[in-house]
Amino acid sequence: MTRIVQKFGGTSVADVDRIKNVARKVKAEYDKGHQVAVVVSAMAGVTNSLVRYCQDVSPDYDAREYDAVVSTGEQVTTGLLAIALQSLGVPARSFTGWQVPVLTDKAAGKARIDTIEPDRLKACLEKGIVPVVAGFQGVDEDGRTTTLGRGGSDTSAVALAAVLKADRCDIYTDVDGVYTTDPRFVKNARKLDRVTYEEMLEMASLGAKVLQTRSVELAMKYRVNLRVVSSFEENPVGTIICDEDDIVEKEIISGITYSRDEAKITLAGVRDTPGVSAAVFDAMAEANVCVDMIVQTDSSDGKLTDMTFTVPQTDLKKALASLESRRERIGFSSLMSDTDCVKVSLVGVGMRTHTGIAGKMFKALSEKGINVQAIATSEIKISVLIAEDYAELAVRALHAAFHLDRKEEG
Amino acid sequence: MTRIVQKFGGTSVADVDRIKNVARKVKAEYDKGHQVAVVVSAMAGVTNSLVRYCQDVSPDYDAREYDAVVSTGEQVTTGLLAIALQSLGVPARSFTGWQVPVLTDKAAGKARIDTIEPDRLKACLEKGIVPVVAGFQGVDEDGRTTTLGRGGSDTSAVALAAVLKADRCDIYTDVDGVYTTDPRFVKNARKLDRVTYEEMLEMASLGAKVLQTRSVELAMKYRVNLRVVSSFEENPVGTIICDEDDIVEKEIISGITYSRDEAKITLAGVRDTPGVSAAVFDAMAEANVCVDMIVQTDSSDGKLTDMTFTVPQTDLKKALASLESRRERIGFSSLMSDTDCVKVSLVGVGMRTHTGIAGKMFKALSEKGINVQAIATSEIKISVLIAEDYAELAVRALHAAFHLDRKEEG
Repeated sequence: MTRIVQKFGGTSVADVDRIKNVARKVKAEYDKGHQVAVVVSAMAGVTNSLVRYCQDVSPDYDAREYDAVVSTGEQVTTGLLAIALQSLGVPARSFTGWQVPVLTDKAAGKARIDTIEPDRLKACLEKGIVPVVAGFQGVDEDGRTTTLGRGGSDTSAVALAAVLKADRCDIYTDVDGVYTTDPRFVKNARKLDRVTYEEMLEMASLGAKVLQTRSVELAMKYRVNLRVVSSFEENPVGTIICDEDDIVEKEIISGITYSRDEAKITLAGVRDTPGVSAAVFDAMAEANVCVDMIVQTDSSDGKLTDMTFTVPQTDLKKALASLESRRERIGFSSLMSDTDCVKVSLVGVGMRTHTGIAGKMFKALSEKGINVQAIATSEIKISVLIAEDYAELAVRALHAAFHLDRKEEG
Repeated sequence: MTRIVQKFGGTSVADVDRIKNVARKVKAEYDKGHQVAVVVSAMAGVTNSLVRYCQDVSPDYDAREYDAVVSTGEQVTTGLLAIALQSLGVPARSFTGWQVPVLTDKAAGKARIDTIEPDRLKACLEKGIVPVVAGFQGVDEDGRTTTLGRGGSDTSAVALAAVLKADRCDIYTDVDGVYTTDPRFVKNARKLDRVTYEEMLEMASLGAKVLQTRSVELAMKYRVNLRVVSSFEENPVGTIICDEDDIVEKEIISGITYSRDEAKITLAGVRDTPGVSAAVFDAMAEANVCVDMIVQTDSSDGKLTDMTFTVPQTDLKKALASLESRRERIGFSSLMSDTDCVKVSLVGVGMRTHTGIAGKMFKALSEKGINVQAIATSEIKISVLIAEDYAELAVRALHAAFHLDRKEEG
């Protein structure tokens, strides 16, 4: 008996006709004799209007009440899809987060799943009933509804696949897979047949919007057989996200991502001592701001220097306020910030075994006259910070330099 | 310590500005030192669009899934009102039906409240927190969300007032009270200061739309001090619904209602024996159709006669099918139906002690040339079935004949 979790995003359930289309896709798997559990998002646009309502009532809203409001979007979809399935002769019933239950911590608006009780869902599956579960939501120990943050339905689906020990977790969306880069930037961007969890994780956290980062973390942790496919194709192949060992023809570089949500902060005239960095990053940690790329120039005379780092644009105000309030303790002459920057990243497990990737990258950028403002690397990625205006040019240049339009064998 | 339940209907919470207006009304009571619990409906129009979604997916939808979908409307309002209250400095939190919990039977789409656990709400009230409860919904013993049927939020509010032993239950709506009749028909219709539970119950079930019938039943059973007031007035007086003993200046006739949801069925050529009536009404009972007015003409020769009765228009098809399938057993020559009829009713506790009401009623109708097709009476009401075209004329004639535009003392 094959057990499958199917997840359908907002554009896949945007209206009644699309919900009926989704029901046919579920029925296709069900008719093969599979046990199928479904996770759905809110109909496209619904979550945004619910968020707007909250903001209109009070910009300074209680996150727990925000959760009470926005979690209703997914509930509507579950009921409608259950009705659509029943009308095709497929037994189905809807589940909210609390009905499953999906137990989360209390971090309203960005809760994390603690556990999912699988018994009720398993009972359904074993009776041949398709449970249709509201994604993006759970319930905390006080019995209050929580939401998992934007894109959280992916995480719901992967977590469900993990506890149900599903053979496969199919993420249905409005694109037909994971691409070497954003096809809106590069016309000959290529769909990847397979990509490793590690690469997908880097790509998701570096700006590829196809999957929520946390869902990939979970899939990697529980070795969930994950697939990204299009809701709008008849027999979609999509992209499989799997272990490195499951990929026979490995690629050196899998993809190029870019992220505009970057802000650069520069502290000028800081003392060149280790204590200063500590004071700066303590300040960021206390303000709950993630620091990403860091550049510190050695001072020639060992006295005063500049320090540059990046933070998410949404946290810039908070970061600056925190630094300003510690001007004395940290000791800097001026504080500058810049949001006209973009982070472009090259991701690929092949970097572990292939040398010369960074050199080739910098050469390709410099040939186009693109100045690199900061660099960050990990075992399988290299990120550079450049001026925002050059984003598209850089992505195209790198895509061409690494021949990502055709399949290379590692 | 005064404890109040306030209920706000769909038009009172139709948009963000109106929700803020409602928050101010709640705050006004809270600031007097009262304990306040609030019940809300869905924003006007929301329930209708959710119902339409269900119908568009499949006209033959599962009522339990319908409940999962439509119950979300009230949840949105609870969260938004809680945010609005908090922004005015009033501590508040939202409650869905299952969070209270409001326990109902399993009759999806038209569930009845079994019990309401008051502990969580009481704990809020005692801490000075305003619980904002989703009306119209509950949860059954299987943990599935149920809804109480149209207008069910009134019932939620009254039931809550009963279990919380509230001093008052204020139903805020878009009219400023209960009128002697529909002001759209009769310009000089008069707002009643007080009306008895019994009268309100008759008026609600006979077509006055201001309160759900079941809410009045509950209020009468638990002696809830009920008030209907306008959300759009500054210091509304409204109408108090109370015990007969609490009304000093009793009116003979309190109101005139009309209902268009009537269908007349005539069975021609039935035998004039008691067994026939039994067979007909058994058929209706088995089809779950309520029979209202009944007219049976005695046959002069004791052999064949006609039998006429009314059923709700929505049940007409079902009723006819049931009768047709028993044509043999019942024995009738033909089956006719007519939906061009309206039931006009005169309601007043004064009927118990005053005679001549019926005579005056028939005289007023006949003076206008209105033919009465059927009659039904109870201790405190007289209903007549007339052709639909005469509805407005009949209501006006009766309103004038009984001088309902001015207060009479009983």
